[in-house]
Amino acid sequence: MSQTPYRTHHCNELRPEHIGMNVTLSGWVNSARDQGGVIFVDLRDREGVTQIVFRSEENPEAAKASHKLRDEDVIQVSGKVVKRLEGTDNDKLATGNVELVVSDLKVLNKAAVLPFQIDKELSNEDLRLKYRYLDLRRPRMNKNLRLRHRAVKATRDFLDSAGFVEVETPILSKSTPEGARDFLVPARLNPGRFYALPQAPQQYKQMLMVAGLERYFQIARCFRDEDLRADRQPEFTQIDLEASFITEEDMYSLVEGLLQSVFKAARGVDIPTPFPRMTWKEAMDRYGIDKPDTRFGNEIVDLGDVFANTEFKIFRNVLQSGGVVRAINAKGFACLTTGQMNRLNEIAVQAGLPVKNLAFIKLENGEYKSPLWRIFTEEEKAAVIAKTNLAEGDIVFFVAGPWESTCTILGRVRLEAAAMQETLKDSDALNFLWVVDFPLLAYSEEDAKWCAVHHPFTRPKTEDIPLLEAGEYAKVRAVAYDVVLNGTELGGGSLRIHESDLQAKMFTVLGVNDHEQQEMFGHILEAFQFGAPPHGGLALGLDRLVMLAAGEDSIREVIAFPKNNRGQELMTQSPSTADFKQLREIYIQSTFKPKTKEEEQKAPAAV
Amino acid sequence: MSQTPYRTHHCNELRPEHIGMNVTLSGWVNSARDQGGVIFVDLRDREGVTQIVFRSEENPEAAKASHKLRDEDVIQVSGKVVKRLEGTDNDKLATGNVELVVSDLKVLNKAAVLPFQIDKELSNEDLRLKYRYLDLRRPRMNKNLRLRHRAVKATRDFLDSAGFVEVETPILSKSTPEGARDFLVPARLNPGRFYALPQAPQQYKQMLMVAGLERYFQIARCFRDEDLRADRQPEFTQIDLEASFITEEDMYSLVEGLLQSVFKAARGVDIPTPFPRMTWKEAMDRYGIDKPDTRFGNEIVDLGDVFANTEFKIFRNVLQSGGVVRAINAKGFACLTTGQMNRLNEIAVQAGLPVKNLAFIKLENGEYKSPLWRIFTEEEKAAVIAKTNLAEGDIVFFVAGPWESTCTILGRVRLEAAAMQETLKDSDALNFLWVVDFPLLAYSEEDAKWCAVHHPFTRPKTEDIPLLEAGEYAKVRAVAYDVVLNGTELGGGSLRIHESDLQAKMFTVLGVNDHEQQEMFGHILEAFQFGAPPHGGLALGLDRLVMLAAGEDSIREVIAFPKNNRGQELMTQSPSTADFKQLREIYIQSTFKPKTKEEEQKAPAAV
Repeated sequence: MSQTPYRTHHCNELRPEHIGMNVTLSGWVNSARDQGGVIFVDLRDREGVTQIVFRSEENPEAAKASHKLRDEDVIQVSGKVVKRLEGTDNDKLATGNVELVVSDLKVLNKAAVLPFQIDKELSNEDLRLKYRYLDLRRPRMNKNLRLRHRAVKATRDFLDSAGFVEVETPILSKSTPEGARDFLVPARLNPGRFYALPQAPQQYKQMLMVAGLERYFQIARCFRDEDLRADRQPEFTQIDLEASFITEEDMYSLVEGLLQSVFKAARGVDIPTPFPRMTWKEAMDRYGIDKPDTRFGNEIVDLGDVFANTEFKIFRNVLQSGGVVRAINAKGFACLTTGQMNRLNEIAVQAGLPVKNLAFIKLENGEYKSPLWRIFTEEEKAAVIAKTNLAEGDIVFFVAGPWESTCTILGRVRLEAAAMQETLKDSDALNFLWVVDFPLLAYSEEDAKWCAVHHPFTRPKTEDIPLLEAGEYAKVRAVAYDVVLNGTELGGGSLRIHESDLQAKMFTVLGVNDHEQQEMFGHILEAFQFGAPPHGGLALGLDRLVMLAAGEDSIREVIAFPKNNRGQELMTQSPSTADFKQLREIYIQSTFKPKTKEEEQKAPAAV
Repeated sequence: MSQTPYRTHHCNELRPEHIGMNVTLSGWVNSARDQGGVIFVDLRDREGVTQIVFRSEENPEAAKASHKLRDEDVIQVSGKVVKRLEGTDNDKLATGNVELVVSDLKVLNKAAVLPFQIDKELSNEDLRLKYRYLDLRRPRMNKNLRLRHRAVKATRDFLDSAGFVEVETPILSKSTPEGARDFLVPARLNPGRFYALPQAPQQYKQMLMVAGLERYFQIARCFRDEDLRADRQPEFTQIDLEASFITEEDMYSLVEGLLQSVFKAARGVDIPTPFPRMTWKEAMDRYGIDKPDTRFGNEIVDLGDVFANTEFKIFRNVLQSGGVVRAINAKGFACLTTGQMNRLNEIAVQAGLPVKNLAFIKLENGEYKSPLWRIFTEEEKAAVIAKTNLAEGDIVFFVAGPWESTCTILGRVRLEAAAMQETLKDSDALNFLWVVDFPLLAYSEEDAKWCAVHHPFTRPKTEDIPLLEAGEYAKVRAVAYDVVLNGTELGGGSLRIHESDLQAKMFTVLGVNDHEQQEMFGHILEAFQFGAPPHGGLALGLDRLVMLAAGEDSIREVIAFPKNNRGQELMTQSPSTADFKQLREIYIQSTFKPKTKEEEQKAPAAV
């Protein structure tokens, strides 16, 4: 099909060796120029651009018609390939040494004046999304869609050759107890009942392991009805996989090979393996976050021994009550503005700092500036300088308090300061990292119960099962792992529980009573009694992975028809209203009554 | 990952050349036999079976433990590969010349007694679906899932190498005007509004053509909320593709190459191309259906000239009023039972026969038997015999009436008679066929308006556009094509309208007024004004394609977790009830009030 009556070549193909050939091209008028009465057109198709010229000595009719060509008209041209005139070669263009002299022109479809120019970036994202079919004509967006295709193809090829079988699991699925909010679909044939769109194919893939498939994967669409902040989509795609008779080490090398293959295909780079590994505890200690960006330093420093016997009461009290005193050095950022300082304080407060301002010391022009400096002893000062490696132009931030929140606050400040300093502006580093040994459970003050850090199917480490039995829940580690790239979580997974009694125990710890277990998870507990193999898996966020591989800042740049941050797809104007008859048929009615003009305006206008 | 601590080999791998090696296998106890106090186990994994033996001289503890092994226990064994004792080889098994003498046994998970046996077929489909994770352990089902994977892989590889780019389009989508019933999803962030699940990505793929992607495909999940008869699923999968700058000939050769590649990968057969082609008119004339099963004859015969001047009033009236008199010869089926005859009459009536019984003639033991025979002249009799090739043991059915319904009735009778005769029982023929030149429009008596035979985006043949302008709608042919295999429609497609004014004209013919056009299709009419290229596409039903490639009779045999004919997925018990709070959050309430016990029972029981 590369040769059709519409074309013999694509617009990126013609070279000096084609000179003298008769060829046919089809595409869009990228631009048209009148040079002394002769029309030159840059003809564009999805592969590239070729210059075509309408000479009246070749075909007077076509030459006449060419004066009416407008940007984005769709045309088909035939003619002879010729060498460009001396001095008119275009070295920036792959086809820049030749041009096509048109002997035959067909206008396939005229184009009206576009609402915006294709070759300029546009900051109004809603306008881009409304005319997405024009927005996707930009070379950058075309490149992104094709890069995504290559990344997904590489994923499938790699997993296929590793023995993984792709299986489609239902989209009309079952509500996920204990998960995020589900999208519900009224089931007309089962009045009063609802399907739920899957948040992940977790239960289905585990059932495929019980079924003996051994290696499953799926490029799976997933859904979460959450409030849309930042860069989230109500539907997203994940590379979902599960395998039986494997260890976590098998999973690491599998996923490393997979990512190697994806980055090679998508971006042409070789990423080194194996990836470094770090326990969750170490990640929190050094970076204050479970997905460390290791492309820069400024790590968290423990100052517990410096202030072990300090006279400074606040630090002493914290340390004596089991807390920590820690700091980071934002190298070279002593020059921060008052506005930046205020912003860092804000972020620290959001992250849990109980006071309004971060404690700090900076060294500018040989002078130490700090509200704390006069409180510290000379010994303490010297130790702080040494431990934090405080040098001219640096600023060190201190936090004292419970371990986890102290690390978290400093971790946020570390990232924000680096963003302000544009530390990573020109970095093309790809720092992959495994974060392992996550805690299995976390106590939720809000719900007044223990919750699963990953999900209730995650396996505790074998050596920690006695701790689970003994009720020492905070100490139990999971066989769970996340893969991180440049501070972004690409995905994660775990080995799973495959024993019915251990799974029931886990539900009990999570506060699900026997009756609820049977009602919500009965089929899983039963399945695990019929020969469930040891198994585990992982899911990678495809949108984010492709975004990073493409070097984009938003997943909306790598999704063909994304929703905006109000959950609307503006091109087709979805979601839309439904009439009473449609709703009656599916046994529901809307309870929404617009109250204010403002609420009305939040809904998309009728097309 | 093929080597893990759990295994060095799969259970299909060991051969005489492995004798003497120490290996590790993991899998399920397929069966265990006690032979003179020694336990022999057939160990199964997803690839095959290996015999393992527990000899107490090798490891007395393992030998003792082996007596407790039960079917479907999950175990890991290590030991030495040995030659089987003379005379105990199993030629039916790939690994039948060797066995593993176990030196180490780990029971990974015990299995309780199963609700049914894995190695026996089960006719209770609801039970199979409830325990789908056991049902999928059957080698046949495992084979089907893996065949589906190979078919899909072959599809993607083929389309990728033909320059097609896979793009994911939204599942949370927009309602399809004029289509089947949509599944609706309340949009919490847009109160009172609803997403619809896509019946097909039709509009999105056409927009990708306007975007200049040129070649798109997607293995796309589609949804239709229809009453579930026969072998339908509320969600199904299609191979969806669209291309720009192509002709219908390009599409035929592309799809032929694709199917060739799929059948090679899935079933190892080479299918010949190009496929035969038949116009819709010819298909109706010869087979009475738009998806002819050409694996057998018994074609429809026109008897118009035989009865042109008949004295038989019924035939004469029909012919004089523009109708037809036609027949099929069900070769060798004169022996049909009264029950079968009744069933054929029923089917004919369902298909539109206005009287209760089919007219027929059969020849048994040299004797013509027919209610009609005494009415026909000798000349007519001779002509009927000659034209229908009526021979000993045959039965010929007559229908007189309007062309289309006459053909349809005879087409149904032809298929049903062949099914009763089991004509195709042992056939492994793969008869592919293109049906082309469908009508563009059909008049719906029910709606009292013209409807699109395919959909409103289908392109009329260029030479028939004047007929469209002239209002001769019945005569307008579409550039639409279906691909048929053995009487099953695998899929179909068309070239599309890409001109805004022609598209608007088409909507007008379909009774959509200007205001509705703007409201429902405004974005398409607008998009076609900004340089839409000529384009067309096709969709193939993946479930049905895989079903045929696997030689199965139902698509449920090639779907991992299908819904039953009440739209329920019995393993997880979906759909399920939702609580009031969930519904309130998405601004709906259920209007369903169970009225009778019967209605209650139709819903699935709580788990």
